[in-house]
Amino acid sequence: MKETTQEKIKDWFQYLQDTVCADLEKLDGKSTFQEDLWQREEGGGGRSRVIKSGDLIEKGGVNFSAVFGRTPKKILSALKLDKADFFASGVSIVLHPSNPWVPIIHMNIRYFEMSNGIWWFGGGIDLTPHFIIKEKAREFHQAIKETCDKHSPSYYSEFKKWADEYFFIKHRNETRGIGGIFFDRISAEEGFTKQQRWEFVREVGEAFLPIYTRAISDVREREWTDDQKEWQKIRRGRYVEFNLVYDKGTQFGLDTKGRTESILMSLPPEVCWEYDHQPKTDTQKETLSLLKKNINWIRIV
Amino acid sequence: MKETTQEKIKDWFQYLQDTVCADLEKLDGKSTFQEDLWQREEGGGGRSRVIKSGDLIEKGGVNFSAVFGRTPKKILSALKLDKADFFASGVSIVLHPSNPWVPIIHMNIRYFEMSNGIWWFGGGIDLTPHFIIKEKAREFHQAIKETCDKHSPSYYSEFKKWADEYFFIKHRNETRGIGGIFFDRISAEEGFTKQQRWEFVREVGEAFLPIYTRAISDVREREWTDDQKEWQKIRRGRYVEFNLVYDKGTQFGLDTKGRTESILMSLPPEVCWEYDHQPKTDTQKETLSLLKKNINWIRIV
Repeated sequence: MKETTQEKIKDWFQYLQDTVCADLEKLDGKSTFQEDLWQREEGGGGRSRVIKSGDLIEKGGVNFSAVFGRTPKKILSALKLDKADFFASGVSIVLHPSNPWVPIIHMNIRYFEMSNGIWWFGGGIDLTPHFIIKEKAREFHQAIKETCDKHSPSYYSEFKKWADEYFFIKHRNETRGIGGIFFDRISAEEGFTKQQRWEFVREVGEAFLPIYTRAISDVREREWTDDQKEWQKIRRGRYVEFNLVYDKGTQFGLDTKGRTESILMSLPPEVCWEYDHQPKTDTQKETLSLLKKNINWIRIV
Repeated sequence: MKETTQEKIKDWFQYLQDTVCADLEKLDGKSTFQEDLWQREEGGGGRSRVIKSGDLIEKGGVNFSAVFGRTPKKILSALKLDKADFFASGVSIVLHPSNPWVPIIHMNIRYFEMSNGIWWFGGGIDLTPHFIIKEKAREFHQAIKETCDKHSPSYYSEFKKWADEYFFIKHRNETRGIGGIFFDRISAEEGFTKQQRWEFVREVGEAFLPIYTRAISDVREREWTDDQKEWQKIRRGRYVEFNLVYDKGTQFGLDTKGRTESILMSLPPEVCWEYDHQPKTDTQKETLSLLKKNINWIRIV
């Protein structure tokens, strides 16, 4: 059986969920994942795993799903197709830390295939620090770039730009965080084989844990004040705004009657909205000034 | 000058904002409104008034705006028009109480007019109790019905149904609260004159304060526990989900570059999302069981 068959991809996604959860539990050291198995009436299902009130993670989810059936109308009409069956599988991670110095991280890799032979991969990994620390931001982008460079010299610049455009909160005129990479519907363009795309996607999945481990180092042990926790809750509000207003994955999931609790596990635990909130400290002001597209994070320091 | 000219309508909306704010300050007894005047680059502006950390109101807004200019493309294409100028004015109220026994209330009345002579009114008033108390729900709907009945025997049933459909959180399969009335683009249909529509809309605006005063009586003084406050924050999460995912006013405002802080003043102060949260007490369970369309609230007790 070829490596890129539905079965193989699905198996590997499940394997990734298993290893990521086991490693995150070790990293957290206090809390463990609770699993919910669910089935989709129209075909397939998933394993939602959530962790809460940990030492590191205040609320987090590592979800796997593999669903199939008739292709949703939205996709069919976008592709100008009448009818086709589909298979979709993916792993999705969102971790909200308790410590405001630790960034929110998001990773997703997904595979989509239709009975007419159309297939694509999508995914990405991006970071949303409540306080941007330039050196940590550089480190994050550097690690992502190295992951990308192993597969194509154009991946990092192309997918970094895509993340800047995608993770943008238009009504706030700010990016969700410092971005990372985002890619969607990558298929056999530019001579890439399915196997090559798959190897890249797998590498993104495998890169998640070392990248997150690095992202939390140095900051995890930092003390924080009530004001900093308050700022975190305000920033989490922006995260909610992005996910509910703009995120296509969330919208698609809710539209197509996905499992609501699994889709909305990405929402933070405690959030604040204050009217016309203004940054008070230089660190807060600097963070806002860096929530922009087209920053060359590799050269930020 | 006729009563239904742009100027007259705008003046009355401002007058309503003034009286509602003054009366709410008296009702609250502790906090006062802060005003932000804003101007819209393309024409017009508004007066945003927010109150926070009150004795009654944890966070609330009473906004007035009157804007004009070229009609947004979204409206033009929906009406199959090429080009027209527009004028829009309205008052919008959302009050989040600190006490979880007190319901969230929302009221909005608005007027829209185009240079080609097209005009309409829209608006409504609806209640989102964190805990539904049947007798209070009945009282609220009864008061709304009486307001409607003065203007047309069909208004209450028609606009109550519209509210049930509109304030529905599809992905949760629950209504936002106990509804109330909602109407949009009501114009000269069914023989109503502009003057008659305007008198009804004004009556909705005038009904706000007595209805709210009644809604908080008996419950405002109730003690609450930490668990009940927690439940309130979970329910507020649903309010956010509705406003950011479904509310057309919010979407339209954000799409057309409205003033973000004025649009999002509707979001609650402190909110929680907990994965797969389940109701624990009978009161919570009963509340969830009543978040349904087509409940005859007038006959609920």
